[in-house]
Amino acid sequence: MFITFEGPEGAGKTTQARILAERLKQWSPVVLTREPGGTPAGDELRRILLATYAGVPAIAEAMIVAASRACLISQVIQPALREGKIVVCDRHCDTTYVIQGYGMGVPLSYLRTICSLVTEGVQPDLTFLLDLPAVDGVQRKMQQPDEFGPMDERALALGELYRKGYQELMLIDPHRWRVIDATQDIDVIALQIYWHTITHQQFIFNLFAA
Amino acid sequence: MFITFEGPEGAGKTTQARILAERLKQWSPVVLTREPGGTPAGDELRRILLATYAGVPAIAEAMIVAASRACLISQVIQPALREGKIVVCDRHCDTTYVIQGYGMGVPLSYLRTICSLVTEGVQPDLTFLLDLPAVDGVQRKMQQPDEFGPMDERALALGELYRKGYQELMLIDPHRWRVIDATQDIDVIALQIYWHTITHQQFIFNLFAA
Repeated sequence: MFITFEGPEGAGKTTQARILAERLKQWSPVVLTREPGGTPAGDELRRILLATYAGVPAIAEAMIVAASRACLISQVIQPALREGKIVVCDRHCDTTYVIQGYGMGVPLSYLRTICSLVTEGVQPDLTFLLDLPAVDGVQRKMQQPDEFGPMDERALALGELYRKGYQELMLIDPHRWRVIDATQDIDVIALQIYWHTITHQQFIFNLFAA
Repeated sequence: MFITFEGPEGAGKTTQARILAERLKQWSPVVLTREPGGTPAGDELRRILLATYAGVPAIAEAMIVAASRACLISQVIQPALREGKIVVCDRHCDTTYVIQGYGMGVPLSYLRTICSLVTEGVQPDLTFLLDLPAVDGVQRKMQQPDEFGPMDERALALGELYRKGYQELMLIDPHRWRVIDATQDIDVIALQIYWHTITHQQFIFNLFAA
């Protein structure tokens, strides 16, 4: 079972992915990872992306993320799924569609092509959208200046485009998505996410198949 | 006018590109560059590529090179061509087709799609293939152990596939290619390349248009 977390900066994706992974361990081996990154080459690519060299076009960003994703899929996600493990991933293809597509204007058809070339057919069974007004997320991160980077500055400018992007993406395959109100208390959110996961048909199917 | 150099490791591409760029300066402003690299982000991506982390799939390599190419096209090549400059580039899309395609087995259709997404329609007017048996090129580089890297080791194993790749690529648009026997003396090669360039219709056209 492949579970992804999406949403704006500061919505709590990393925290909630960690909590869910921890809770699911009582049921099954779990692999927790993130994008971009999650492999040695992917982590280097993440560093380049976050350094935001001047003038890097959005299509180049999409290619860097796709390269990192190709490594993660072939070295981490695909092997784990084959062994029947649950994979929890902080950000995946939807982030590319939202940031480089809705945010930076790269045609979605280009981005879908790029993603399909690297995912080897692997698609999330379940995606949590931690929904939050973009401004709120960035304000949360501003309270931890160490974590406030160039991607947050961009999110401040383009955040509402990202949010609109997620809303449109959800219309394409609504059964995959669960929208969580990320303004709620952290424990409440975690419980909602856990409940959505253990009642998902793929989770129950795996449980009986094991 | 956009001129590219292709051929195996150790064939003398870098040297010949430099000599040609130097000679062409009497006619027109020239920009000399290379792939992957040629921009700040591109040089970092080149470093990751040459570090050859274990298990990086060939499609990820193609994406890394494409990201570097997107930066180079938008920041260096496209602006220079718009200003009427001659651009000389050490390796370009054909290298991707040959190494990741013919060498590593990524379908050429994937690689053509990836290249077309980042080149913004820019294509070489003239491509020099410095032709050399793969073994000879690698042996030349072995004599300079400082320059002998993982890409050379791979070239030793896959070099004949690369050569076959170049031969097939040439059949698609033969008018673009000039094949140079790279076993010749360096000065002879340089003179042949210079002659092919200044007698090329695009060069003559630009000369009269200026």
